[in-house]
This record gives sequence, structure tokens and C-alpha cells, in this order.
Amino acid sequence: MGRRRISIFGVTGSIGANTLSVVESLGIETFDVVAVSGNGNIAGLALAARMLKAQVAVTADGGKLEELRAALAGSGIDVAAGANALVEAASRPADWVMSAIIGAAGLAPTLAAARTGATIALANKECLVAAGPVFMAEMRRSGARLLPVDSEHNAIFQLTCAERDCPIERLILTASGGPFRNRSLDEMARATVAQAMAHPKWAMGARISIDSATMFNKALEMIEASHLFRVAPKQIEVLVHPQSVIHSMVGFCDGSILAHLGPPDMRVAIGYALSWPERRHLPVERLDFARLSRLDFQSPDPERFPALGLARAAMSQGGVSACVMNGSHEVALDAFIAGQIGFLDMASLVGEVMERLDGLPEANDLDDIFAADAQARRVGEELVKRFAA
Amino acid sequence: MGRRRISIFGVTGSIGANTLSVVESLGIETFDVVAVSGNGNIAGLALAARMLKAQVAVTADGGKLEELRAALAGSGIDVAAGANALVEAASRPADWVMSAIIGAAGLAPTLAAARTGATIALANKECLVAAGPVFMAEMRRSGARLLPVDSEHNAIFQLTCAERDCPIERLILTASGGPFRNRSLDEMARATVAQAMAHPKWAMGARISIDSATMFNKALEMIEASHLFRVAPKQIEVLVHPQSVIHSMVGFCDGSILAHLGPPDMRVAIGYALSWPERRHLPVERLDFARLSRLDFQSPDPERFPALGLARAAMSQGGVSACVMNGSHEVALDAFIAGQIGFLDMASLVGEVMERLDGLPEANDLDDIFAADAQARRVGEELVKRFAA
Repeated sequence: MGRRRISIFGVTGSIGANTLSVVESLGIETFDVVAVSGNGNIAGLALAARMLKAQVAVTADGGKLEELRAALAGSGIDVAAGANALVEAASRPADWVMSAIIGAAGLAPTLAAARTGATIALANKECLVAAGPVFMAEMRRSGARLLPVDSEHNAIFQLTCAERDCPIERLILTASGGPFRNRSLDEMARATVAQAMAHPKWAMGARISIDSATMFNKALEMIEASHLFRVAPKQIEVLVHPQSVIHSMVGFCDGSILAHLGPPDMRVAIGYALSWPERRHLPVERLDFARLSRLDFQSPDPERFPALGLARAAMSQGGVSACVMNGSHEVALDAFIAGQIGFLDMASLVGEVMERLDGLPEANDLDDIFAADAQARRVGEELVKRFAA
Repeated sequence: MGRRRISIFGVTGSIGANTLSVVESLGIETFDVVAVSGNGNIAGLALAARMLKAQVAVTADGGKLEELRAALAGSGIDVAAGANALVEAASRPADWVMSAIIGAAGLAPTLAAARTGATIALANKECLVAAGPVFMAEMRRSGARLLPVDSEHNAIFQLTCAERDCPIERLILTASGGPFRNRSLDEMARATVAQAMAHPKWAMGARISIDSATMFNKALEMIEASHLFRVAPKQIEVLVHPQSVIHSMVGFCDGSILAHLGPPDMRVAIGYALSWPERRHLPVERLDFARLSRLDFQSPDPERFPALGLARAAMSQGGVSACVMNGSHEVALDAFIAGQIGFLDMASLVGEVMERLDGLPEANDLDDIFAADAQARRVGEELVKRFAA
């Protein structure tokens, strides 16, 4: 594999830090780094830019241009700031682009990078969940290749990218089950933020931990999988697997099931995306199956984890319903963290927003997506007041 | 996939019966069947030949030509008998050949088929275990493609055939552990034939059940894997996995582990070999992970399962040592079944034969292999008398 031009958007976040680590492992000198971007963490952004000898460093925060300029003084690295600068940087020719900006802010730069024909390593969730049909249409138009970076979808990509004529019968997304895996509905109804954050296996941020407890994370991954692998909703299964050693599985038309297993280390998926279609050595932990001793499985309870049913509804409704689900879920999550609504209210609220906004027109572009998202959040906010009352 | 010319050697055995079933599932009319072969079961051979409308049916038993001729009277199917007829039939042009003759009798026909350039679906064990270096050299010369059919190697093939530049770090062969998985060395020393045959999961023939109890089956599979996937002995691990749902795993240089899982049904591997590089629908059971509930793993105990160490010794010694191991193991197994030696004596006997015959010259052709095999059996027989005394 020769030298490659790469850009990393969202370099100061957790995916960004792991991407830096992988680039270091594979040899910084084998890459030409075009652009790196961050948001408020200017020191981290400047450090990454210097380490990678990037052509340009961009902060999404338009007010921090001078701070970034000062931090990179004498480095010869260009600086820029603001949303338009992000899109400009993403439009620069590159072979491979990491899309790891969090939230809707990642949509425009990712689409801009796709239009250049770069291979897109996708970690941004909104591209597929909120803007799936619009984003996938643009990917098809541009012919850009999409390599998913979260562990479940990267696993499925590894297992299917070499298969001919897509004989996928079932995708089995594994889920840890979170802290409430074996709790009763009553216990879940009374769950506090602290309980919902107490993931049995990993210390993660509040939002992602709670999404694991509700399984909203898995629900949104189902929607992502439907776009990435072009499978029907009924082909997507969720399997609770508390050890999370199996990252996901694919069932084929001949009864074969292929599984991807690995350590809980984001570098595996990122390294695969950066080395694809080859594999290169990564200094990550090797699994020791005798020490693992056992892997467990159970079906997710649809009553205790209604988010999964909401994802199925969103997939079968199509249009902007997944966007509505995503936007209202953000509102519900904020409200739960703020103590305004209960744990199970989150899914009830999202379901009600989705019902009320069923029938919104399909989205033709990102503006339509932003409009549907805004409407979902507005209706969600209204409902928070009612649930809280 | 267009019409393909196929031959099935060993059509009356268990692999043969499953191959027939797969051919039926995929549509007999999509194949042109060149040759089928069997041994003493003339009725079964004739039935298969008629069902498949084969060009020629061959019995390995030279004395049964007339019986076969009578059984196929009026069918228009050619008949032949004897070892030379098998080789002649295997030399007929075909696209795909199932090599499922049991034992050393499978060597010459398989090599003959390979010389035509046909894709070889390999179920015969001796080709790789006894004749590995000779067989693989012939495969390289002829350029014939080799598709392994037993579930472990087929699993690994499925997981690696699309990978570039062979970045395999480890092969993990799974083993059920057999009936003595958790028995003490003392209990194993006193084990009877009936106990050794009582496989916890499958009713199989006596020999294969006992090989599962000693793990000689897995030991020989390690040797096969070293030839098939060109890995060093230390890259091959054996993992006890009593449910046998994971058929095997491959670890890559990036820390990823890929696994193949499936129902305990030989048709999956055979169907894959027959459809490769595509996959076609097979009417086999689909795995239900929630019902499986758990998968267990443990390391095999090298003291209680010394066959695994013998395989490592054979692989590192190279030459004909695997052939010697295989031949003396057959003798030891016969002697255990006949009540002449104890359960643990089998591995001791094989180890001693291997030590005594260490330093035999390398094999250049099948005759050298047959000579080494004969010598191993002769020394083995001598040792049986000593062990029995």
C-alpha cells in the first residue's frame, strides 16, 4: 500500500484519538495528512495537527480562529474556522477521510468529502440515522466507498465485503444488554440516571451509557445497518451478548454464520478501515478464549426495550421517520438526564413523536432533514412538559 | 454459475450421501455428472449413479464388476472396477471433484483428478496427513484448487479465502473435547471402548468417536491445517468448545478474530465447496443463539490429550513423520478397540513409533509414503504385543 492522503474530522474526540493512535502504529510517515478538525479543544487540535504535519487545521468554532492560529504559530500549518471552513477542508482531495464529528454538524463535511470520491470511514451517526436516504443517494451518485467504523457495522463489513451477490440472510447485531439486562419492568420504570449510567462493563459517557441501558444505541444501529448493507428490517436481529466479545454476526443463505470477535478496542475497526482491503498489524490485546471461558446469549425483551420496536417502525415507515426518531430521542435523553422524565418515558415519548409526525414528506436534501429534526425536537419538547407534569 | 461437470468419489459413504443431498438441493439438472465411485455397496453406488445420470460408475472392489454391471443394466451408464479404473475415472475432465474415498485408497484418484486441473473438494484425510508434502507439491504443480470439506478446515477456508496477502496470525481449531473432557488421567487410563465411544453430542462410528475422545482427530486436523493454510505449527491452537457451534476461528494481524458457526450438518461445508466462490441456499437448520444460550471454551490439557503434542512434534519434524503418526495411530486404534491396549496406551504407542522412525528419508512420491506407512504399522504392531504383554 503506497502513501495515502488522509483527513481526520473530529480528531479531538474519542474516535479521533484512536485514529491518531492507529496512524502512529501504522507509521505517520506513510500518510500525507490533508486536514484535521476539532471543535473547542484548540490545544488538542493543534497538537494533532503538528503531530500529523497536516496541511490545514480547522476548528468548527468560528470564534476560535485566533486561538488556533496562535497555537499553530510557526508550524506552517494553515488554519481556518467555522462550518464553511469545515466543508472547504473536506472538499480538498484526499484518498481517505475519517468522519468523526459528533452530531448533525458532521453531515455537510461528510457529504463534501464523499463528493470528492474519497473513501469515507464513517463514525458519525447522523449521516445514516437522520439523513440515511439523502446520504446514501449522495454516496451512490459520487461512487465514494463507505467503511463503517463502529464495531458492530465494521464487523459486518469485514464479514460481507468479500461475499459475492450479497447472499445475506440475516444480520445479528450483538448488544451488551446494559445494566438493566435482567431487571424487571418495574425496576426500570424507577431507574435513576446513576443506575442507568452504571454500565456493567465499560465506563463511558453519560449519554452513551444511558443509550446502552435503553438499547436506543442498538435501535439506531439497526437503522444504520439497513442502509449500509441494504437488508430488509426483518433480516436484522438483535442478540443480547453481555460479554460483547462477538461484535456482530452475519447469516448467509447456506446456513453459515460468520462472526467477528475482538477486544473492546476501537482501534481494531479504525485500523481495518484505514488498511482495507488489506489488514495491517495493530498492537491491540489478543483474545484468550480459555480465559474468556464462556459467551452468553439471550433475546432482548421487546417490552423492556421498546426502542428496538421503534427502530423497526422507523425502518418500515421510511422517509424521515428515522430522523424524527433520532431527534426526539435526543430530547428525551436530555430530559431524562435533567430528571424531567422517567427512564421508560424516553421510549414512550419518542414513540409518540413518531406517531404524531408520521406522514411528513420525504427529504430531498439536508435542509429537509434539518427541518424534520427540528420539528421532532419541538414536538419532543412539548411532550417533555406533559410527561413531566 | 453455469452447468458444471462434477465427479463424486466415495459416493456411498457419509460425505458422499451428504454430497448427493446437496446436489439435489442445488438442482441435479444443473450438473453434468462424470463419475461416481463406491466400494462394496453396489446397490448404493448404482442408485447414486442412476439418480445423478453419471457417465460412469466405478467400484473400487475389482471382484464386483459384474454385480455393478447387472445393477446398472439398461441405464446406459458405463461401469468399471478396481484401483486402476478409479484413477482412470478420476482422470476424466471435470470441473469439480469430491474426494471422499476413505483411507490410502483415496490418494491416487485424488492426485489424478488434481492433474486434470479440476477443483478438488477434499474430504480424504490421508492426502494431507500421510502424504502432505507430496500431495501439496502436486497440487502446486497442477494449479488445481483445493477446497477442504471437513467443518473445521472449511470454516477456516471461508474465513480466509478473501483475505489478501495471508495476514493470518493464528488458527483456532475448535474441538468438542469428547466424553473425557473433564475426566481425570486415572479415569482415562482405565477407560473402556464403550466409554470412549460415548460421545456426549453425536452418535458416530466407533473409530471417529474414539478419535474424538483421544483428540487424535484434532491432532491430525492440525497437520492438515498446516498444509492447507501454510501456517507454522505455533500458529495453530486447539480450543475445547463442547457445543461445537463455532467450527473454527482465524486471528489476523490486526487483532480481529473471524469465526464460522453453523449447525452440525456436513451439508454446509459441502454446499460451500460446491458453490464457491458463491453461496447458494441450503435447507439446513438455522442457528438460534438465544436457544443455544451459551458457548463454552477451555484449553485442552496436554497431559490428558498427548495426541496434540504428537501432532506438534510431527509438524516440526516434517518429512514422513506425520505419515508415521497416522499409520501407527491406525494400529493403536485397532488394538484399543480389540481390547489389546489401554486408552492412554494409544498415544504412548504412537509416540514411541514416531521416535523409533525419526530420521526416515523424505518422501518423493506415493510409493515412499506407502513404504513409510507400512513401516509405521509394522513397528506399531510390534509395540502392541509389548504393551499387551
